[in-house]
Amino acid sequence: MSEGSARGFASDNSAGIHPAVLEALSAANRGHAFGYGHDDRTRATQELFAEQFGDDARAFFVFNGTAANVLSLRAACRGWEAVICAESSHLNVDECGAPESIAGVKLLTVSTEQGKLTPELVDSRVQRLGDEHAVQPRVVSISQCTELGTVYTQAEIRELAAHAHAHALLLHMDGARLSNAAAALELPLRALSTEVGVDILSFGGTKNGLLGAEAVVFLAPEFAEGFEYVRKQSLQLASKMRFLAAQFQALLTDELWLHSARRANAMAARLAGSVRDVPELSITQPVQTNAVFATLPASVIAALQKRFAFYVWNERRAEVRWMCSWDTTEDDVDTFARAVREVIASGDV
Amino acid sequence: MSEGSARGFASDNSAGIHPAVLEALSAANRGHAFGYGHDDRTRATQELFAEQFGDDARAFFVFNGTAANVLSLRAACRGWEAVICAESSHLNVDECGAPESIAGVKLLTVSTEQGKLTPELVDSRVQRLGDEHAVQPRVVSISQCTELGTVYTQAEIRELAAHAHAHALLLHMDGARLSNAAAALELPLRALSTEVGVDILSFGGTKNGLLGAEAVVFLAPEFAEGFEYVRKQSLQLASKMRFLAAQFQALLTDELWLHSARRANAMAARLAGSVRDVPELSITQPVQTNAVFATLPASVIAALQKRFAFYVWNERRAEVRWMCSWDTTEDDVDTFARAVREVIASGDV
Amino acid sequence: MSEGSARGFASDNSAGIHPAVLEALSAANRGHAFGYGHDDRTRATQELFAEQFGDDARAFFVFNGTAANVLSLRAACRGWEAVICAESSHLNVDECGAPESIAGVKLLTVSTEQGKLTPELVDSRVQRLGDEHAVQPRVVSISQCTELGTVYTQAEIRELAAHAHAHALLLHMDGARLSNAAAALELPLRALSTEVGVDILSFGGTKNGLLGAEAVVFLAPEFAEGFEYVRKQSLQLASKMRFLAAQFQALLTDELWLHSARRANAMAARLAGSVRDVPELSITQPVQTNAVFATLPASVIAALQKRFAFYVWNERRAEVRWMCSWDTTEDDVDTFARAVREVIASGDV
Amino acid sequence: MSEGSARGFASDNSAGIHPAVLEALSAANRGHAFGYGHDDRTRATQELFAEQFGDDARAFFVFNGTAANVLSLRAACRGWEAVICAESSHLNVDECGAPESIAGVKLLTVSTEQGKLTPELVDSRVQRLGDEHAVQPRVVSISQCTELGTVYTQAEIRELAAHAHAHALLLHMDGARLSNAAAALELPLRALSTEVGVDILSFGGTKNGLLGAEAVVFLAPEFAEGFEYVRKQSLQLASKMRFLAAQFQALLTDELWLHSARRANAMAARLAGSVRDVPELSITQPVQTNAVFATLPASVIAALQKRFAFYVWNERRAEVRWMCSWDTTEDDVDTFARAVREVIASGDV
Repeated sequence: MSEGSARGFASDNSAGIHPAVLEALSAANRGHAFGYGHDDRTRATQELFAEQFGDDARAFFVFNGTAANVLSLRAACRGWEAVICAESSHLNVDECGAPESIAGVKLLTVSTEQGKLTPELVDSRVQRLGDEHAVQPRVVSISQCTELGTVYTQAEIRELAAHAHAHALLLHMDGARLSNAAAALELPLRALSTEVGVDILSFGGTKNGLLGAEAVVFLAPEFAEGFEYVRKQSLQLASKMRFLAAQFQALLTDELWLHSARRANAMAARLAGSVRDVPELSITQPVQTNAVFATLPASVIAALQKRFAFYVWNERRAEVRWMCSWDTTEDDVDTFARAVREVIASGDV
Repeated sequence: MSEGSARGFASDNSAGIHPAVLEALSAANRGHAFGYGHDDRTRATQELFAEQFGDDARAFFVFNGTAANVLSLRAACRGWEAVICAESSHLNVDECGAPESIAGVKLLTVSTEQGKLTPELVDSRVQRLGDEHAVQPRVVSISQCTELGTVYTQAEIRELAAHAHAHALLLHMDGARLSNAAAALELPLRALSTEVGVDILSFGGTKNGLLGAEAVVFLAPEFAEGFEYVRKQSLQLASKMRFLAAQFQALLTDELWLHSARRANAMAARLAGSVRDVPELSITQPVQTNAVFATLPASVIAALQKRFAFYVWNERRAEVRWMCSWDTTEDDVDTFARAVREVIASGDV
Repeated sequence: MSEGSARGFASDNSAGIHPAVLEALSAANRGHAFGYGHDDRTRATQELFAEQFGDDARAFFVFNGTAANVLSLRAACRGWEAVICAESSHLNVDECGAPESIAGVKLLTVSTEQGKLTPELVDSRVQRLGDEHAVQPRVVSISQCTELGTVYTQAEIRELAAHAHAHALLLHMDGARLSNAAAALELPLRALSTEVGVDILSFGGTKNGLLGAEAVVFLAPEFAEGFEYVRKQSLQLASKMRFLAAQFQALLTDELWLHSARRANAMAARLAGSVRDVPELSITQPVQTNAVFATLPASVIAALQKRFAFYVWNERRAEVRWMCSWDTTEDDVDTFARAVREVIASGDV
Repeated sequence: MSEGSARGFASDNSAGIHPAVLEALSAANRGHAFGYGHDDRTRATQELFAEQFGDDARAFFVFNGTAANVLSLRAACRGWEAVICAESSHLNVDECGAPESIAGVKLLTVSTEQGKLTPELVDSRVQRLGDEHAVQPRVVSISQCTELGTVYTQAEIRELAAHAHAHALLLHMDGARLSNAAAALELPLRALSTEVGVDILSFGGTKNGLLGAEAVVFLAPEFAEGFEYVRKQSLQLASKMRFLAAQFQALLTDELWLHSARRANAMAARLAGSVRDVPELSITQPVQTNAVFATLPASVIAALQKRFAFYVWNERRAEVRWMCSWDTTEDDVDTFARAVREVIASGDV
């Protein structure tokens, strides 16, 4: 897979910084500001979060998505408490053991359809309560959208939250791509979080056009107690906080989050539409947000990867993942879709 | 202490982003790039580190200084190994217990003059070797410059390194302000690190005009083994790594690090020079880099803080810290020095 | 389930101390001895381990089985390294998250037949080598005998060890009941450990008639480096070590371990034989050591539990576990087997 | 220092098991009992603790003193909270970093006279409250008696507890030798713990004639919440708990704890009295419990160590520690005191 400035479909974090965000960084670069979040811009940005997520929401900015997730768990769990999540969740497969090593928690994983938990799947791990030999479940963690690009409906989240709360569990949402889910469902952010019972949210920015900023948002503010210390001790307190704040300020102004996410989603839909009828290719997941998962002949994959950046998701199944981002253009998609057909047609595959 | 866009003397991280760095971010924002450091710009920047610190140097970019220090220790120490450092070191007093909680190491602290370790002070903690009831020292960690703005000479570091190595210890340098020390001593960066026996360096950028980027630099590259995993697991792997790289690229190009550090140092010297003869004021540390420590009447401190941002370092002793930064101007200094005299003269203090 | 001094089938750790072990404690209770293992009896007992496991074996005594397992992993793994084990392993389900919380490692679990790993199952988790987003496998951990009372043959262990070593992995054996496996296979302890490639062994004593003592035995002694510190720091260094040593001294003298394990195994075989033809009852696992797993009507279980101590292994399947121990008598078994038939026959179930 | 069955003065854990304790182990070794503390003897012993320490006291048995201390801290502290203790405390110098590595807490140490904290010394570390860059004090930990054999009076503890509580801190007592302190002050155990405001107590047994058992006693029972899991996860849940319980049962029956501690104290007093007038020898700490600290010529130390087991406490000062135990006899003391005089008189020192 060769690199270049050409836009490929490797990841939404292969894309750069949205111009409005870069502009915001520049605008924030005036004079001095107190460090560590004790500045006016950070306060103003926290207000924007309260507007999006409700007056009780308390937002803390951190550097990346691993941190947002792991710090959420550190805040929620005592040493012997555990987290119920999908086997395919980022927490389980892509954090290099940070939940276990840094938060010290055990993950109770379940095999899922399309990466989504259900009350029944949660129940399968709400076991051995009160048995000192077993970790005690404390958090249900879901990804919205999932690693597979699928989304939970409002009703599904509400039901999971009610179920979690009935068992004295918290609901955490890994919302690295919450914006894409909200855009897909045509709902405000709060409708998929605060209003349906999510307690702690990892709200992503980096994959949606920021340079690098994520937020831990406590929708149930009681869990924010002491989080300043958790953040600092967990290596996540930015000294020049104003520049994390500025990024979110841009993202939450004039619905930039929505426009960017919509674009990425639309491009994925366009791509899926353009190749769906290719007989050698099979789309393997519902295309609900900005990802297209597909199987196609290994030789076609190899030939395409010479020209376009993207990842093989599952080597054994010859399944690829094509991610669209805020800056993907119709032309990018059409060129790529054409290439898919050409490579297949060329016969030398 | 009121905030504003006015430049004060609170901290070198109250300053913003150097224009050349902001420009570099903008320049890096072209098209797509692979994430997580697998991009050309990251590779090119690692080359710049090799130029500065020697061909064997291996640089890993992280988000902040806490991380650079704590990850250095995670890389160097096994669970029962410990770190000898000054009682006043940032590691000990300003990381909210991250060395203990995240790296799992115990700090063996010593009381120092001017924040500087000596071989004799190190010896006082190289004790109980082979005694299973005691942690075993593994790292000597020094700050260059120190929390008190003082610097180690080349000879001092070389002697500490030789001493450490003779006891099978590593020398770690917290170089959050190494640039200021190098500027003060008129030496290249490598002359205070690679060439005098430092094994692992936390190299700071944020306090010297970056948006936010630090580097763990392995000068003894054998300790870098597995560090990719340490960085990821410790929540410090940036997805859009190119933007951390771009900052360092700017910093290490055309000696920006040196010009910025020189300016900050010069302004501190100017400030110290301007107030040194005020009888009510006493400068408490040698002014060798970009900090001025001074005692003055508590009422004067209070009056000054109404107009200028700066920190009281030691409430009990009525000792303040005035930090200069890459963007401090002669006018800033002169205005402030004048204010000091005026407040004292005003009689209502 | 009522308690009493009557022998039931709840667990082999419901049994007390073998008289020879109690006698050994008494014999060790003469005068003073240096603490922490620096005594003659500890040294002599380590010699007994070398006789059993080979001259290179290095044994460290700890308090319980959780500790033996977790300290083995602490010794073997760096922070980002992981352990491949059966989903049903004690490590995964019965240590209250100690591997994750205390050793800081992630478990890569696989679903198994009869609790046993195979090279193919191991391969399913030897994935993503070199990918910094994923933990890196370092240890394969097997239980001998398994949680389900089944045993690995010599050939099976040898093959797993060779497979592990070919992938630069260690083989750890949770031998909490290794004595039962060795007795079942009529092999010396070393034939199932040292001679077939096991690197680190948790050798159990408590379930086989000790008051409370387990050993971490490094068969590949290079992994013992620094383990004195690991043991102390992990809360497992006994001050009056002579009394842990004395227990093992008794166990390894005159083949006490073998006689006790044989008895327990024979009693399980007798029990299985006595009830196997009861139509309402189905034995669910091969009875190879000292456990019998069986399903029977829930009402029968309830009635039996009024008179005998034993655990329901799987509520849903109405599956029970009956454990025999070093002190189970033929009469205990016959009385119980008779009761099973009576309860079933009584019609009021 | 040679070993043998002769009683020396190395440590109170060089002594063996009190006959009444051994007898209790034997008595407990009848039939079967449920594991993990779910047995009648454990419940009965917890009652004995309630008698000693008050109805609210909740006792949990663990294996050793390191565990009792570290688990107390795990129960009391969240990740960013810290423990104020004496620099000379066992926690700080003799636990191989377990507080930091296993409990994840930072120790805020203070230099003390005679190993004892005072409200003023505590205040010196109750600093930077609310500052996210600094760990937040949560526990004051004192040792009764101290590492130096000195004791806190009731008034001193009461004052420390009131002071701690006024700052929302807990008072933890490392009572590995609380019995010796209580014997010295002729007070019941509760008078030095429950009645003077101690919140969590590590109550020692091993140094006072047990085989090996310590207890974490929550005098403020709200801190016991979830401690079953802490104990299990921290590798401290004994399967055959009845044998830990039996030891404490013996210790708390017929005031065995008191008689044993009194004997040890009396022997230390006798020893100090016997050598106090030797001009070459200087007793360096008040002899209040079962330890004598003294300086004497290095050559005398060397000569004595050929015949008697004891430790050099401070090599540089030629200071030794002589510990008496529950089984030290008047003859042991007199023989040793005579030897001290003889070696000094012999002239070949």
